Formats: sequence, C-alpha cells, structure tokens
Amino acid sequence: MTFLDKLLNISKKNNSLVCVGLDTDIEKIPKFLLKENDPIFSFNKTIIDATSDLVCAYKPNAAFYESSGAKGWEALKKTCEHIPEEIPIIIDAKRGDIGNTSRMYAKSIFEDLKADAVTVSPYLGGDSISPFLAYEDKCAFILCLTSNKGAEDFQLQEIDNKPLYELVAEKIVQWNQKGNCGLVVGATYPDQLKRIREIVGKLPILIPGVGAQKGDVEKTVRFGTDNQGNLAIINSARGIIYASSEEDFADAAREKAESLRDSINLFRKK
Amino acid sequence: MTFLDKLLNISKKNNSLVCVGLDTDIEKIPKFLLKENDPIFSFNKTIIDATSDLVCAYKPNAAFYESSGAKGWEALKKTCEHIPEEIPIIIDAKRGDIGNTSRMYAKSIFEDLKADAVTVSPYLGGDSISPFLAYEDKCAFILCLTSNKGAEDFQLQEIDNKPLYELVAEKIVQWNQKGNCGLVVGATYPDQLKRIREIVGKLPILIPGVGAQKGDVEKTVRFGTDNQGNLAIINSARGIIYASSEEDFADAAREKAESLRDSINLFRKK
Repeated sequence: MTFLDKLLNISKKNNSLVCVGLDTDIEKIPKFLLKENDPIFSFNKTIIDATSDLVCAYKPNAAFYESSGAKGWEALKKTCEHIPEEIPIIIDAKRGDIGNTSRMYAKSIFEDLKADAVTVSPYLGGDSISPFLAYEDKCAFILCLTSNKGAEDFQLQEIDNKPLYELVAEKIVQWNQKGNCGLVVGATYPDQLKRIREIVGKLPILIPGVGAQKGDVEKTVRFGTDNQGNLAIINSARGIIYASSEEDFADAAREKAESLRDSINLFRKK
Repeated sequence: MTFLDKLLNISKKNNSLVCVGLDTDIEKIPKFLLKENDPIFSFNKTIIDATSDLVCAYKPNAAFYESSGAKGWEALKKTCEHIPEEIPIIIDAKRGDIGNTSRMYAKSIFEDLKADAVTVSPYLGGDSISPFLAYEDKCAFILCLTSNKGAEDFQLQEIDNKPLYELVAEKIVQWNQKGNCGLVVGATYPDQLKRIREIVGKLPILIPGVGAQKGDVEKTVRFGTDNQGNLAIINSARGIIYASSEEDFADAAREKAESLRDSINLFRKK
C-alpha cells in the first residue's frame, strides 16, 4: 500500500488530521516512570495506547532519542514497533546528504526502523533526496517553509522575485514522479501555507507549529488541507504529550489530542 | 582548549590537512573482519591506529552507523572513544531543526559522543544553529556549497545577484560571535571555494570531494587554505579506507593517507 493510501485510510477511520509528535524527553516525562527499565519507551507506549484512535500519524523526533545514544535508538525502534500497523510513522530527522550517504539514511529509516516516512532537508538538492524516493511506498517530507523565526534567513529570501520556499515547492512537484513526496510547512506562516497548497495540489503537507509555537488552527486547516479537506498532517507534540506530568498523563494527552482533532474538524471541508 | 587551537596544534604536529572520513559500510569492509564481535568498530580501530600520525581530523559519517540501528550507534561511540584526544572528531551528521530540537542534537553529538564538531544544515536559519554554538569549545561546520550536482538546485541560485551559498557564507561570518563556526565547501567547486575563502577569512573550511568525487587537490589547497596555508580540512573517505579489501587494508589506507597528505603539502603556503 502506498503512503498516501495508508494516510487517507486512517484519516478517514479516525476522522482525524492530528499527528502526535513524540518529542520524548527524559527530563519532561512523569517522574514515576523513571523507575521503569526503559522510561522513554514506557512513556511512548502509554501515549500511543491512549491516542491511537484519534490520530492520522505519529511523528517521533529523532533528536530526542539520539540524545540518549544507543539506548535512545533502541527506545525509538521499540516505539516504532509498537505503533499499530495502520498508522503511518513519520520519523522527523531532517536528513539529507550526497547520494551514497542519503542511501544509508534511507536504509536506517525505512529498513531498520521500518517507518513509513521521513523529513528531509532540501539544501543539497534533488540528488540528495532521490535515495529516499527510491522507496516507492514510503514518503519523504521535504522541508519547505519551517515554523521558526530563522526561516527568514534563507527560506523567505527572493530568487527571481520568488521566495526560496516557493522554488523549493515547485521543485518538489517535479521530484514527485512516483507520488511519494510531501512537504513540511510551519503553521506559523498561514499566508505562505495557502500559496504552497496552491502550488503543490494534492501532495501531503506536514504542518508543525499549532501547539507550543502558537500557529492558528483555523487558518492551518483552511489553507493547509486539499480541496477535499484532507492531506494536511497537523502535528502537536509538547501540547499533547506533556499535558500532565502526573499519573493521569495518558488521559490528559488523550483529552488534548481529542480536543485538537475536534477543533481541526470544525474547519475541514466536508 | 578551543576547537581551532586543537585543529591548529594537530595540523602542525602531523604536518597535515588530511581528514579521514569514516564512512564505514559493513558491505565494504574486508570480509575477514565479519567474524569479529563488532566488525565496524574493529575496522575503524585498525584504520585509526594506522593513520593517526598523518591526519588533522577524523570525520565519522553518522548515516553509516545509523543504518545499523542501536548497534551502529554503539560502534560510533566506541570509535569516538578510540580516537586520540589530540585529534578533533567531526561528526558528519548534517543536522538542523528548530531550537529545542537542535539542542537535543547538540547534546547527542557533544555530550553523548563527546565529539569536537558537527556538520549542520543552514536551511532553517540562525536559530537552528545557535544551540550548537552554545558549546563554545566545539565547532559547527555549516553547509555552504556541497560537492554534489544537486548543489545547483538551490545553493547556486541567485538572491539579489548573489548566489545563495555566498549569502550563507556571509551569515556564517555574522554567526561566528564565539569563534566556533566553520563551513563545508565541496572541492568540486574550486572557483567558488576561492570566493568563499575571501568572504570568511580565517574560519575553518571542511572540504570533501577530493577522493572518489574527483576534486582537484592543487586548487583545493590553493583556494581552500587561509593566508598561512592552514584551516582547510581536506576529507577523503572511500579513497583511503577502502584502498584494499584484503588483510593489508590498514597498510593500504596508511599509504593513501600519506600520499594525500604529501600532495596537499606540495601546494601549501609555508
């Protein structure tokens, strides 16, 4: 099954565009979990079990696992194994290198972790991304316009009267020969999100920035979804997984995920 | 000690600008090593022991370790621990994300692996790089102009009559408040390397592309070094570490490293 089919199936089944970001930080998880053998995995397992009927994807953030070295990588792998087969796993890794190195990154994400998708950086150009696209049933979400202030440094600069992020969006459409490209666009730039959706048509857009980063949910949904109210994957991490640091953290996360799902659905095209 | 002092000390002691890239691939190392408990580490250890008096740095390429999951990460960590203290370790990881995530990547590279430097991507802008620069005695090598064909897609595009890579080089000079920025520039673009050295003055430049990618050594040295013949870190990986796939692989790697060092030194300013 292609990534897009998997995404559309679960979006429909769970009536959801919510992606839960698993930015799991040993210093932020409930203290009582620290007595577990693998606290990071225990935390993720509990969050996944509490939210898997409310989401369209999970997005583990590689940095948070790498910061604990091999042990963290093991927790990431166990987390991927625990996510139900029908829910896409997007590894947020922002990888990208020359061809023979990108091939190794793709192997890591798609073969070792068996994830469905990965975020990649466009800076090195098309040949740095093609090794990811060689996996036809997977998806590469290419950074287009990121949610942070630093996006101004280069992404918003103009090339031939066109901002760099638009040039990137146009290139992504060209690179999408096998239908397995996606984009990353921050919710903090709603007008630009609208323009990017016009450029890319029915490509999936991963949209971080509605939670702790304060992106507007209504604009994100109206401008980020396609003409059928789909194909936006709206990520919240900190706002959901750290909703409580007590024994009730799973319930609190579920409540936040449900509430985000419902606010998003208010604005989706039917 | 700052990264720059460490780099200049070992460059002088070993009379070398050679960086050996540890792009260690289980499918390319000598077959007889596969019976070892940790073949990747055994290979690296042997290469390091055979070349440590000939180099100014080692550059493990994170992708090659990640492709083996937790076990690969463990081999990477053991490799870092085995590299002599006086030789800088540059983790080629091309990381970069919003602030709170870049902090985790920096922790991974500088605290877990205890490396001296890392390569990072500029696409997300200054605030994605500052968490790496918070480690004052470490160094962040920021991608400026990469050695691959895909560099044309964005890096060579012009913003206000100036190619993007020049804008990146100028920003790096601004970001270098604590003296711990470096750049990555491919040897395959010698004219641009010359221009970049003019822009950045005495910042260190990591230069891949003289080996398998066929960059010209003379131009790389003349255009890449500073006005005292230093501060270029010239990387070769495949050309050195896979010089032989037989029992003599360490001797063959030593010979290639020495030969590269000597050809580089022919063209260095005295």
